[in-house]
Amino acid sequence: MSVETMTQPLRHTDPGLSQRIAESALARDGGVMRDNQFWQWLRERRQHQLQRVTRVPFAELRDWRFRPDTGNLCHSSGRFFSVEGLRVSTDFGPVSKWTQPIINQPEIGILGIAVREIDGVLHFLMQAKIEPGNINGVQLAPTVQATKSNYTRVHRGAAVPYLETFRDPPPDRVITDVLQSEQGAWFYRKRNRNMVVEVGPEIEAGEDFCWLTLGQLYRLLRVDNLVSMDARTVLSCLPYIPSVGTHKPLGAAIARSADWSTGGLCTTSEILSWITARQTAQELTVLPIPLREVDGWRCDPWAISHELGLYFSVIAVQVESNRREVTKWSQPLLAPCGLGMVAFLVKRFEGVLHVLVNARVEPGYMDTVELAPTVQATPSNYVHLAPENRPPFLDVVLCSRPEQILFDVELAEEGGRFHHAQCRYVIVEVDDDFPEQVRPEFRWMTLHQLSRLLMHSHYLNVQARTLVACLRGLA
Amino acid sequence: MSVETMTQPLRHTDPGLSQRIAESALARDGGVMRDNQFWQWLRERRQHQLQRVTRVPFAELRDWRFRPDTGNLCHSSGRFFSVEGLRVSTDFGPVSKWTQPIINQPEIGILGIAVREIDGVLHFLMQAKIEPGNINGVQLAPTVQATKSNYTRVHRGAAVPYLETFRDPPPDRVITDVLQSEQGAWFYRKRNRNMVVEVGPEIEAGEDFCWLTLGQLYRLLRVDNLVSMDARTVLSCLPYIPSVGTHKPLGAAIARSADWSTGGLCTTSEILSWITARQTAQELTVLPIPLREVDGWRCDPWAISHELGLYFSVIAVQVESNRREVTKWSQPLLAPCGLGMVAFLVKRFEGVLHVLVNARVEPGYMDTVELAPTVQATPSNYVHLAPENRPPFLDVVLCSRPEQILFDVELAEEGGRFHHAQCRYVIVEVDDDFPEQVRPEFRWMTLHQLSRLLMHSHYLNVQARTLVACLRGLA
Repeated sequence: MSVETMTQPLRHTDPGLSQRIAESALARDGGVMRDNQFWQWLRERRQHQLQRVTRVPFAELRDWRFRPDTGNLCHSSGRFFSVEGLRVSTDFGPVSKWTQPIINQPEIGILGIAVREIDGVLHFLMQAKIEPGNINGVQLAPTVQATKSNYTRVHRGAAVPYLETFRDPPPDRVITDVLQSEQGAWFYRKRNRNMVVEVGPEIEAGEDFCWLTLGQLYRLLRVDNLVSMDARTVLSCLPYIPSVGTHKPLGAAIARSADWSTGGLCTTSEILSWITARQTAQELTVLPIPLREVDGWRCDPWAISHELGLYFSVIAVQVESNRREVTKWSQPLLAPCGLGMVAFLVKRFEGVLHVLVNARVEPGYMDTVELAPTVQATPSNYVHLAPENRPPFLDVVLCSRPEQILFDVELAEEGGRFHHAQCRYVIVEVDDDFPEQVRPEFRWMTLHQLSRLLMHSHYLNVQARTLVACLRGLA
Repeated sequence: MSVETMTQPLRHTDPGLSQRIAESALARDGGVMRDNQFWQWLRERRQHQLQRVTRVPFAELRDWRFRPDTGNLCHSSGRFFSVEGLRVSTDFGPVSKWTQPIINQPEIGILGIAVREIDGVLHFLMQAKIEPGNINGVQLAPTVQATKSNYTRVHRGAAVPYLETFRDPPPDRVITDVLQSEQGAWFYRKRNRNMVVEVGPEIEAGEDFCWLTLGQLYRLLRVDNLVSMDARTVLSCLPYIPSVGTHKPLGAAIARSADWSTGGLCTTSEILSWITARQTAQELTVLPIPLREVDGWRCDPWAISHELGLYFSVIAVQVESNRREVTKWSQPLLAPCGLGMVAFLVKRFEGVLHVLVNARVEPGYMDTVELAPTVQATPSNYVHLAPENRPPFLDVVLCSRPEQILFDVELAEEGGRFHHAQCRYVIVEVDDDFPEQVRPEFRWMTLHQLSRLLMHSHYLNVQARTLVACLRGLA
């Protein structure tokens, strides 16, 4: 080969990138937009983005109908998403066979955050975005959040701002680009493309957008219902190295946990082998079925609900908004019953923080198992089951003392599909006598091990990804 | 936390392991079993393992029947596997919609090789194993090859030797443990657990087994139809670092390609982003359907075949064997039409060998896309299509000059499911003027980048895994 035919030298992944991300995380008091400016801007956005959400019976849904052959609730275009049925049998958990409604959304959407270096610090372009299911209207969302139906404009609405940044970016500007799953109890094999792309000064913040440092975002994660689920999952997929310079023992334990040169209780190949064993051990058979064949659920003109009032309902809403691609539409939403509890138990081993991770089976995952928080449960769904079927470690979280609680915030799940879906996200540091050896479906992992897995699809579920982002913010 | 509660120090993955594997690869002339002993042993195994395979009409299958409701061909236990139908629509390839028969085998089997250090060198415990679909009877297989139906002994046959080595091994003895897919055109979401486990002197070779070095195995890969598909896929998942000390330019280019400190034309994060983009770009909808609803295929008493005589047939055989867990049984087999062509195009860039990899859609994959060889096609399946639909680069392979061909061997696919399925596996070094920029569904990757992906499930398809093992053997 002559040297002349080479157009591109051989390259490694940019070693300075992690450092630049760490520096952005250190800018906790803000960059170009100071904190007081941010709150002022958010207040204005909340005043400007108006939305009226009215619950309606299914019969008043425009462009949505129950298909006569299957009973599935579908959009007339055949696009967006549909509510269908699922038949599940598994040897995991207290219930071995059931049917349920589930959202089928085969399209892969884009969740993208643009980052730009301003005054030498990386800033993240965040969007003030209202969604019909949000309990409080506007939340802080990624720069772009678009399904294929959105960006191919099936709804014939306005174009999605900044979309082109994520459609075909120059390869060396892409910081994160990975498919990740969403709630496997509510979605059938849904995943989104989580992207972070670096841009130049040609990209400026429109009026619903603002540039924030990673340090600011980490602090805003501690505010109830502010940083959206979509923003949290994208942030969790950032390549992460710890901020240096902290002298607090907890921050140092987190930084050591995130450092690639630190070992763990298990090696990475032991973790991968354990995941393989869990994928193999657990039987799960999942079959999409017509919604009309779902047992134990009843459909009335206003809702599809479980006959014991558990889990969730499917409802219908009409939405009027002054800020979306389309200003008036109606759609189904999934309304969970009860407040979810999502918690990491963490413990320091040799001064290195470890997270207790659960290999969890959910019927809507692409594969059988994904790694989940130590506890992920809606306590009210367990009231009809025997006490021995209560989720492991739930009572450890509920009975933890205040000084053990490192993080405790109510965060909202995706308001475009879920109605007022919230979970309490908690990080609890367990006592010294908490056992190192635990049940076979749990393992202690370092933050670095979790971050490595986050470069790949479908290892960590969406709840665990939120907690990884929150934990990094504690460093 | 008090130090007393610690039972296990924090650990890294064993840094000496790769070196020990590399040393085994250098032992090309054999370890405890010299080459002439091996051939003698194999000859004896072929004389001792007797099998008679007789083609029969479906009506003579024992314990198998077409289910009256679906037409699916199933075992009476409901276990093993079944032949069902699949409805596919995709925007990839020349045909956008079709139905086809497919093998559904939801159980995850174990493909395991035991390794043991003998006289300071790692040896691999290989099995002489006969399968009904093998063109030549006995091939060289992993130590254990067992579906769950086998090892839970649904067939009430003899126990599987060495199975316990792989059932619950000590975590620090596991070298490889990863789920990998098999042929996505013939299997629906089938995958097996590829395992390599280190054992001690308590494990000895039974009469159908022998200890071989990795260097011996690499040389045996160059023999037609000797190393089985299952053995090849397990070998490909070994953590690999190159043998040092070669002075030949090709060997040095392969060694540099496998070295973690060498860069590539694309960075690893660019490769991951490209894979994400291909998963997203390509639409694939796959729906299991009853076999009786498959169009374009006809079922007669002896075969289910495509009406143009293309692709494959499903046939039935009766087997008598003196060496399997069960000595007499009957089963369906999938008989492909025509010889497959599987090829890597490789090229040196700055003295580093790169492999041209294809992001390929097959309906039976867990996800839409897996990385495949540059060419993977059965040329006779394309005769009815327009010339522009010939697979890309097929003619580059077919027209390559002898001095460009680094590897050219006929290897057999899994003889437990496929009847006389063979492919010609070829590695061709392209000329200097072959373009670096290629179609969007192809990328040049280093052997190190491929090896890193092989630590995870479902990145490389089974044909690419075979070629990775073969390419390493050329170093």
